[in-house]
Amino acid sequence: MRKVLVTGIEPFEGEKINPSWEVVKLLGDMELSGAKIVVRQLPCVFGKAIDALNAAIDEVQPEMVICVGQAGGRSDFSIERVAININDARIPDNENNQPVDETIVAGGPAAYFSALPIKTIVNGLRESGIPASVSQTAGTYVCNHIMYGLLHRLAQPSCKVVKGGFIHIPYLPEQAARHPGAPSMSVHTVLNALELTIAIALHTEQDLRIAEGATH
Amino acid sequence: MRKVLVTGIEPFEGEKINPSWEVVKLLGDMELSGAKIVVRQLPCVFGKAIDALNAAIDEVQPEMVICVGQAGGRSDFSIERVAININDARIPDNENNQPVDETIVAGGPAAYFSALPIKTIVNGLRESGIPASVSQTAGTYVCNHIMYGLLHRLAQPSCKVVKGGFIHIPYLPEQAARHPGAPSMSVHTVLNALELTIAIALHTEQDLRIAEGATH
Amino acid sequence: MRKVLVTGIEPFEGEKINPSWEVVKLLGDMELSGAKIVVRQLPCVFGKAIDALNAAIDEVQPEMVICVGQAGGRSDFSIERVAININDARIPDNENNQPVDETIVAGGPAAYFSALPIKTIVNGLRESGIPASVSQTAGTYVCNHIMYGLLHRLAQPSCKVVKGGFIHIPYLPEQAARHPGAPSMSVHTVLNALELTIAIALHTEQDLRIAEGATH
Amino acid sequence: MRKVLVTGIEPFEGEKINPSWEVVKLLGDMELSGAKIVVRQLPCVFGKAIDALNAAIDEVQPEMVICVGQAGGRSDFSIERVAININDARIPDNENNQPVDETIVAGGPAAYFSALPIKTIVNGLRESGIPASVSQTAGTYVCNHIMYGLLHRLAQPSCKVVKGGFIHIPYLPEQAARHPGAPSMSVHTVLNALELTIAIALHTEQDLRIAEGATH
Repeated sequence: MRKVLVTGIEPFEGEKINPSWEVVKLLGDMELSGAKIVVRQLPCVFGKAIDALNAAIDEVQPEMVICVGQAGGRSDFSIERVAININDARIPDNENNQPVDETIVAGGPAAYFSALPIKTIVNGLRESGIPASVSQTAGTYVCNHIMYGLLHRLAQPSCKVVKGGFIHIPYLPEQAARHPGAPSMSVHTVLNALELTIAIALHTEQDLRIAEGATH
Repeated sequence: MRKVLVTGIEPFEGEKINPSWEVVKLLGDMELSGAKIVVRQLPCVFGKAIDALNAAIDEVQPEMVICVGQAGGRSDFSIERVAININDARIPDNENNQPVDETIVAGGPAAYFSALPIKTIVNGLRESGIPASVSQTAGTYVCNHIMYGLLHRLAQPSCKVVKGGFIHIPYLPEQAARHPGAPSMSVHTVLNALELTIAIALHTEQDLRIAEGATH
Repeated sequence: MRKVLVTGIEPFEGEKINPSWEVVKLLGDMELSGAKIVVRQLPCVFGKAIDALNAAIDEVQPEMVICVGQAGGRSDFSIERVAININDARIPDNENNQPVDETIVAGGPAAYFSALPIKTIVNGLRESGIPASVSQTAGTYVCNHIMYGLLHRLAQPSCKVVKGGFIHIPYLPEQAARHPGAPSMSVHTVLNALELTIAIALHTEQDLRIAEGATH
Repeated sequence: MRKVLVTGIEPFEGEKINPSWEVVKLLGDMELSGAKIVVRQLPCVFGKAIDALNAAIDEVQPEMVICVGQAGGRSDFSIERVAININDARIPDNENNQPVDETIVAGGPAAYFSALPIKTIVNGLRESGIPASVSQTAGTYVCNHIMYGLLHRLAQPSCKVVKGGFIHIPYLPEQAARHPGAPSMSVHTVLNALELTIAIALHTEQDLRIAEGATH
């Protein structure tokens, strides 16, 4: 059976939960569009996060990998367009590493573009009533690090994963309740969005050409 | 049986729905904390909105009235502190009225403070994991107009309604899907928040003294 | 000679400067539109701020009073529409008072509307290329407190001050440099805006009726 | 004499001015840190903007090139970290081209990192009281296009330009006056910031390693 690996990340920056894992774990062992979903939690640690992702890919042998992370302060389900080859940590990770301006893969390309049909996903989500957008930056912390690590693996000729990318999600309401003013999205809405994303990504061979760019 | 009147507003500014009514209507005929909930939709029309509210109060004879409206762009469940005696419409209402700097009640006081335990409500919602805050302005459009009309009635010695106020809620996800970047809150979260608000308001005699102010 | 009293406030919340005083002090002893400008700095202390304002009015005998304060995070020159009769301090003032939900003037009205031609000012500033807007809330801290105190005095039949109100201004650039992401406005732009405001306010007898309201 | 080429862009999206050119043109023929500043305005047109930039480099033979563009809605002087190899135009350019998901340089790398000491510049500006930050995305419009084109040229072994990058600046106050709520920065502040940037960039051989990253 076709397999899809979906990952969340452990809590960081003093949060008790990470919404990515709270939602991703609910997908575990589900079947969607004829594929089995396998879920894993990655550590919020530079280096170890990519190691854990690679081990999961080796074990699961998925045809698609979708990594999900928390973007506290963002208001919608945001599909990342690009990962860049740099770690620049505003805060220490969960093992107290704080790399500044270090490459993720020495000698690797400066960036990788998402290997998901990002426009088709955003379009499909909006048509289903879910707030979504393309994001032009995944930051420079562990999320971007994981996305870069994933896409670097996909870029290797031997890699059998054919699609993959990264999605940032808002705080859950229970987190936003402690960050006055911060937007949130419910577990239910994010779960719907993730299921749709997986289905769309599995079925789309050619991405739509619709503008989702930013003037700056 | 004790009665609580809860109102939503009809859609405006080109929206197909108004989240206030989408949620409020789900409360219809519910019993909460020993009170029967009666719901009504108010028109988004200056003057007629207050007339409809007054007619509903006459008919229902509630002990508490909670009016709910849409605040597209806000991210949380926001409890209004104060209504001011002015209409200043940035956009025309649903019957094409656009009053500018007109009083709501000629000779009425400049403002009324909410007759709800706003701090206790915000505190209770946050403890239940729902993003909530006290808002220092309900604007100058139909929502503020309704809140002022309600509190003006409560201020009359003959009025038997003892508690009342106004709550602004974010777009629903299906609305935010058409307003890229706008925060949203699910029907389920807002419904939970409203039920809690009603229960807390019914049971609270003395509001908490906790800071929820703004420096500007 | 006609006199105009313009006040700034001392620094608070850990800032080394308050942009309101940095700009207001530059107006000292200037003549504008045939009026002499007298400037004073008010303490960021509940109660004492109003006492100092009243003493300055007694001494200067101005025909107009414009009070200015800092609104860190706002992006434009914002003319306050209304002051409300409540102190609700998110942070302690400079003498460590932190009133919560206390009235400013016992038995005073719930609110006072600005006694400045706020629409004419906003319109004139924009036409001069200065970002400006009407604000529907002055908060619940010392700025709102001062504005309420000023307008309460103007409301007394014996008061000879005929115009007055409150204006919030952004951080200066040097402050925003330490608050990443915060908007700022230069001393020069704020000074221009204040001079124009004074001139417009002195010459305007009837405010414009142009929409500057908010839907929420 | 050492030469520095500084470029602005012509107005777009209905604006009458582009703040980048309004400020950059003031630097023309100035001498800064022993270098002569040469300024040019680039068209807001995909393709032609890079052609004009290349022609200016050929003519001027600068050792450093700093390109500046407008970021309406941003609040500070923002130094771009990276340009990506994609055009995705939310709005048509000034010759009505609207490329969607097209590469800038076929076969070029996915991204280039700025060839300016971005951390040293941000640090120096803040110490001088100017709001500044590192930006993790230059968007996907003409600004990113120009930045990519510049860095692609710098990446060629034959290129004698040794430093270069892109800076986004806020609206000028006169623009923000027509976009209520938008932050702005005065010509004077931006000019100071640009002069400092040039001086710092000319004198810095090794960038500082200080965190300026984003978690998302």
